[in-house]
Amino acid sequence: MREVAILEIGQVPVSENWDKSLLELAGEPVLQIFEKTGLTSLDSVFVGNMMSGSANHQLHLGAYIADWIGAQNASAVHVEAACSSGAAAFRAALMAVASGDVDSAIAVGVEKMTDSPAPEITAELATAADADYERDMGATFVALNALLMRRYMEEYGWQKDAFAGFSVNAHANGVHNPNARFRSAITRETYLKAGMVCDPINVMDAAGIGDGAAAALLVPLEKVRGLAQAIRVAGSAAATDTIAVADRRDPLWLSAAEKSAKAAYTQAEVTPDDIDLFELHDAFTIIETLSLEASGFAERGRGPELAADGAIAPTGRIPLVTMGGLKARGHPVGATGLYQIAEAVMQLRGVCGAVQVPDARIAMTQNIGGSGSNVFTHILRKQ
Amino acid sequence: MREVAILEIGQVPVSENWDKSLLELAGEPVLQIFEKTGLTSLDSVFVGNMMSGSANHQLHLGAYIADWIGAQNASAVHVEAACSSGAAAFRAALMAVASGDVDSAIAVGVEKMTDSPAPEITAELATAADADYERDMGATFVALNALLMRRYMEEYGWQKDAFAGFSVNAHANGVHNPNARFRSAITRETYLKAGMVCDPINVMDAAGIGDGAAAALLVPLEKVRGLAQAIRVAGSAAATDTIAVADRRDPLWLSAAEKSAKAAYTQAEVTPDDIDLFELHDAFTIIETLSLEASGFAERGRGPELAADGAIAPTGRIPLVTMGGLKARGHPVGATGLYQIAEAVMQLRGVCGAVQVPDARIAMTQNIGGSGSNVFTHILRKQ
Repeated sequence: MREVAILEIGQVPVSENWDKSLLELAGEPVLQIFEKTGLTSLDSVFVGNMMSGSANHQLHLGAYIADWIGAQNASAVHVEAACSSGAAAFRAALMAVASGDVDSAIAVGVEKMTDSPAPEITAELATAADADYERDMGATFVALNALLMRRYMEEYGWQKDAFAGFSVNAHANGVHNPNARFRSAITRETYLKAGMVCDPINVMDAAGIGDGAAAALLVPLEKVRGLAQAIRVAGSAAATDTIAVADRRDPLWLSAAEKSAKAAYTQAEVTPDDIDLFELHDAFTIIETLSLEASGFAERGRGPELAADGAIAPTGRIPLVTMGGLKARGHPVGATGLYQIAEAVMQLRGVCGAVQVPDARIAMTQNIGGSGSNVFTHILRKQ
Repeated sequence: MREVAILEIGQVPVSENWDKSLLELAGEPVLQIFEKTGLTSLDSVFVGNMMSGSANHQLHLGAYIADWIGAQNASAVHVEAACSSGAAAFRAALMAVASGDVDSAIAVGVEKMTDSPAPEITAELATAADADYERDMGATFVALNALLMRRYMEEYGWQKDAFAGFSVNAHANGVHNPNARFRSAITRETYLKAGMVCDPINVMDAAGIGDGAAAALLVPLEKVRGLAQAIRVAGSAAATDTIAVADRRDPLWLSAAEKSAKAAYTQAEVTPDDIDLFELHDAFTIIETLSLEASGFAERGRGPELAADGAIAPTGRIPLVTMGGLKARGHPVGATGLYQIAEAVMQLRGVCGAVQVPDARIAMTQNIGGSGSNVFTHILRKQ
């Protein structure tokens, strides 16, 4: 397996981008990469997107976007894994370069959600769940996560305020990210008084959607060895779990997160202690908690302890969502996995200013599809 | 790049499978493979599908199908490239095994189309075209292909009856395929009297849709070397063209087909003369013609000559669509690419009975998405 590096990244602010078409949105981070690298030809394009077929009446995004960005005759496909579509596209691009089949691959994640009415988007998001046993029963994603959170609180004896620190941290970091949708700091008070979405999940537990796009250019490591801005992909692993939460023996244990994290650690020859920052999938504070436990950063049932002191701040022991995460940056679903990669690359390049993790050398990202049904873990390293 | 082989295949009859769910349909060819190989664990699953998000209100097919087939914790994604989604999933599986990342990969293509009313399916198929400049203008796929066919006839001086041989050949072969949807032979007369769909394309120029699923199990060649039923993947290449037909300098030349075919020939170290059979993408007789020319089997403007005598029959110089092709087997879009692979494997194993190509050693498949916008070419060889 040939080693692979990320040569460059691009991203656009997550927002309500009503003035941009799906193409313009997807093209922008790629054109940033072309401009920064002077790249003029490209072997392949991998597009991460979940719902453009229904939300934008456009499928075939591989060819569609390759055409728009001028990637003449490049191979191009669309990869979908619900909210983990971005990381799935990144990993497919990685495999193509690692196999030796191509020497350059763009992975671009894009999602344009705010043109559609909220009930439609909620229904479309639910196509990531089990159509027969979850979606048709009215179990939206927030409902499924509310059930998980309630059960977690009951099983391990936590009160709601224990989760506040996760949300406060995300917003504190997002303030400094020009690409974040929600750039205002919040207090514990804000969290505790936030409107309820689906008890016990309130507005501050849940990531907001948005329109966005982010991209990464992957090349063989041997071609960029020694180049400071090129970041090595040291680990990449994916695993699945049952599609329906009710089918799991232990719904509070994300076995796909455990499996993919462990495989990524083995590949990168690291342990959780070596990770300098973790861009995790904080779609809901409960999923953040379960991800931390399954990935080996906290004991089972003790994830919220991490949110209690400064451990997850950029200067803490295990910095989380250093650019705001899904919560404050926003969660344009198919793009999220690529935003995480872009943010991890920026940290390893040391260009994150006020939220820079001191001496960051190893970063981990984790992108989750469905209620823990599909988990992609990546470990990136400075060369 | 590690060499890869197809160890086993599975397929279900293309039909109106109203009694089967999307899951049951997708699971069946995979369970056939499990039964034939005795396989009990699986590293990864790649699902080719175009329109389940809108037609079946279910996305996230990677995790969904991995769960159903019992591929506990396997990595799994959904790959989409319009009507070439099946080959796109196959190629993604190939990259994963070739890279050394996984040792077993199932590529399964599935499409369940006949539950939806025809106008809906027509609209959903059109999401493979340019939403703004083709679909919104009312240009369905059959309309776009009718424009191509009319222009081809005008430019190169062909009459409609010149295309009859392609359709007659497909139906003659389909009679012997138990998985084909339309198992009746037709005559030139049938073709010439067939009802018009969109002038000059009549019912016998156009492939019918259907519900179907087909799958292939990919493993490293080194693990099955010398095993007669294991077929080597000797070439795999993909390329794109503009999404909109009107944007092409020469709409009658499929440059993506040319590029992907040439790259596959180079990888497999063969020329068109070495190909013993060609499972091509006969969604319309005009696309079949253009594919033959761009892939080097006929001079520009002379493709229909091949249909005039017995050249394309199983015993001819270049046998085409030996099991009925899209025309007679049926075209469940996201599954088609895997049916082509399964049929090519059967030919190379010599188990095709009445339509067996004598001494078949090298087979080629070509799966096309949109109006030539995305083309995947594979070359398979007996070991």
